Amino acid sequence: PCVRVVTASNALAATSQVRGVHTSKDNEQLEGKVHDVSVQHFRRSNNPHPLFSKVDDHGNPVWVNPVDNKVWSEEEVKDVKVTHIDPKDRHDRVAYYLIRMIRRGFDIFSGYAFGPINEHKFLRRVIFLETVAGIPGMVAGSLRHLKSLRLMKRDHGWIHTLLEEAENERMHLLTFMQLREPGLLFRGMVLAAQGVFWNLYFLGYLASPRTCHRFVGYLEEEAVKTYTDAIKALDDGLMPTWTNKPAPDIAKTYWGLADDALMRDVLLAVRADEANHRDVNHTLSTLKTTDVNPYVSGK
Amino acid sequence: PCVRVVTASNALAATSQVRGVHTSKDNEQLEGKVHDVSVQHFRRSNNPHPLFSKVDDHGNPVWVNPVDNKVWSEEEVKDVKVTHIDPKDRHDRVAYYLIRMIRRGFDIFSGYAFGPINEHKFLRRVIFLETVAGIPGMVAGSLRHLKSLRLMKRDHGWIHTLLEEAENERMHLLTFMQLREPGLLFRGMVLAAQGVFWNLYFLGYLASPRTCHRFVGYLEEEAVKTYTDAIKALDDGLMPTWTNKPAPDIAKTYWGLADDALMRDVLLAVRADEANHRDVNHTLSTLKTTDVNPYVSGK
Ligand SMILES: [Fe+2]
Ligand SMILES: [Fe+2]
Ligand SMILES: [Fe+2]
Ligand SMILES: [Fe+2]
Repeated sequence: PCVRVVTASNALAATSQVRGVHTSKDNEQLEGKVHDVSVQHFRRSNNPHPLFSKVDDHGNPVWVNPVDNKVWSEEEVKDVKVTHIDPKDRHDRVAYYLIRMIRRGFDIFSGYAFGPINEHKFLRRVIFLETVAGIPGMVAGSLRHLKSLRLMKRDHGWIHTLLEEAENERMHLLTFMQLREPGLLFRGMVLAAQGVFWNLYFLGYLASPRTCHRFVGYLEEEAVKTYTDAIKALDDGLMPTWTNKPAPDIAKTYWGLADDALMRDVLLAVRADEANHRDVNHTLSTLKTTDVNPYVSGK
Repeated sequence: PCVRVVTASNALAATSQVRGVHTSKDNEQLEGKVHDVSVQHFRRSNNPHPLFSKVDDHGNPVWVNPVDNKVWSEEEVKDVKVTHIDPKDRHDRVAYYLIRMIRRGFDIFSGYAFGPINEHKFLRRVIFLETVAGIPGMVAGSLRHLKSLRLMKRDHGWIHTLLEEAENERMHLLTFMQLREPGLLFRGMVLAAQGVFWNLYFLGYLASPRTCHRFVGYLEEEAVKTYTDAIKALDDGLMPTWTNKPAPDIAKTYWGLADDALMRDVLLAVRADEANHRDVNHTLSTLKTTDVNPYVSGK
């Protein structure tokens, strides 16, 4: 994808020649006069621009995501288990059977339930699901942000964890998008799915945050299963073109993978993220919304 | 405000005794059996829990915001100028005259336009405005996040800067909330303002992101003026109770202020943030939405 690269310098150069920018010398207002814009006028972070602080072997700028994410150790990614929490009350059961229904319907509708897994089927599935998976964290994070604003109360650390989850899922999507360019029909379904799911989850979260967190907990239980199945299929030779396929650069940068990392390493890292979201959301669903979030990652 | 402090350990202890949590030993599904939950099951960041990694002089846990924010140098905060960018086209004029109208109406409605400034009037104004100021960044950030998901395309670094702005404004609010407990009428107006502004800005951003960024640019020009006026009033002795008032702890932690920092230092830091938002939004309004965000702060 061609990006009109506006390097920080020419963005500022462009704006600093903008006519009509005034800097009042001693803080009163100078209307209508044109002044040279002192560079100070445009505040820039004093860190070197990260987008261009890292370049790949071909000299192209590498995108370094400023949002912290967990870089998993080898031991942690291998240690991920498929787990399940039994539904205990009405909220849990609503969440659990909704997910069972959605999973069953989606497996049939997407053809995933029929015939063996392969790279094409798997990519189609995870790209679609990752466009949806990025929604709950953003909805919950922004709703809690708005609530904190309108009640003028503290949030106790939830917003950041939820927005991090949303960004994490978006990076999953962008990673798999390096491997496949979806067609128009697929894109149409992604649009429809977002329109439906965003609104439903938004209303759901207003009504019952805990049911929603349990819903995401069960959603991620399924995701961990799907990625575990994919890793097994890869090992069993059912996805031959991925056996020695190098990990996309975006994945190496994001998860701090080794230069010679392969697709298997990417699947392990994504699975570890999903297990993390699973555990976080299952725990958040057991807390009162005014409790302190035990998962706040430190600086 | 009393917070039911669920320390990380007892949140996990509570959940680890939760019946019905299964960890499948070798990854197949064990339905219905109760297992001891291995601690590994709940992923926690390996950093010490920040909420409790810092304690104040009385031993109380100190909230350390995991979202990066700019810690301004003394020179930077003093260097902030009141600036203004002349509207150049239809988009700019819509944004500019909307802000002029809103400012004028609000000054009259809030009584700010009548009589000298004082601590009470100023606090009432900024608390109200900061509940609104935290909205644009979150709306724009979440809409660009959703767009990146549904188009399966990269965002070029805008989301993070916008969400950082929203969090920054929320921290302004929480800082001033240490100094005043608003009444019911005031709270009602805050609720109404969020309901109206959130929906209008949401639709506005869908329609014309650049007009919205210009709108926020002009909104922040006004904020820089208001904080500059307040600092001047403080120096002129019009806010006597703040002359030697220590900065709230939340402000010292957030902006890395000195232990003996005063309210004046808080006003300087907040003003520097607002000038930053002003410059960022004015610049973003000149860029195409597919341009790379020149303000991405590095790790
Ligand atoms: Fe994911
Ligand atoms: Fe997920
Ligand atoms: Fe603010
Ligand atoms: Fe602001």
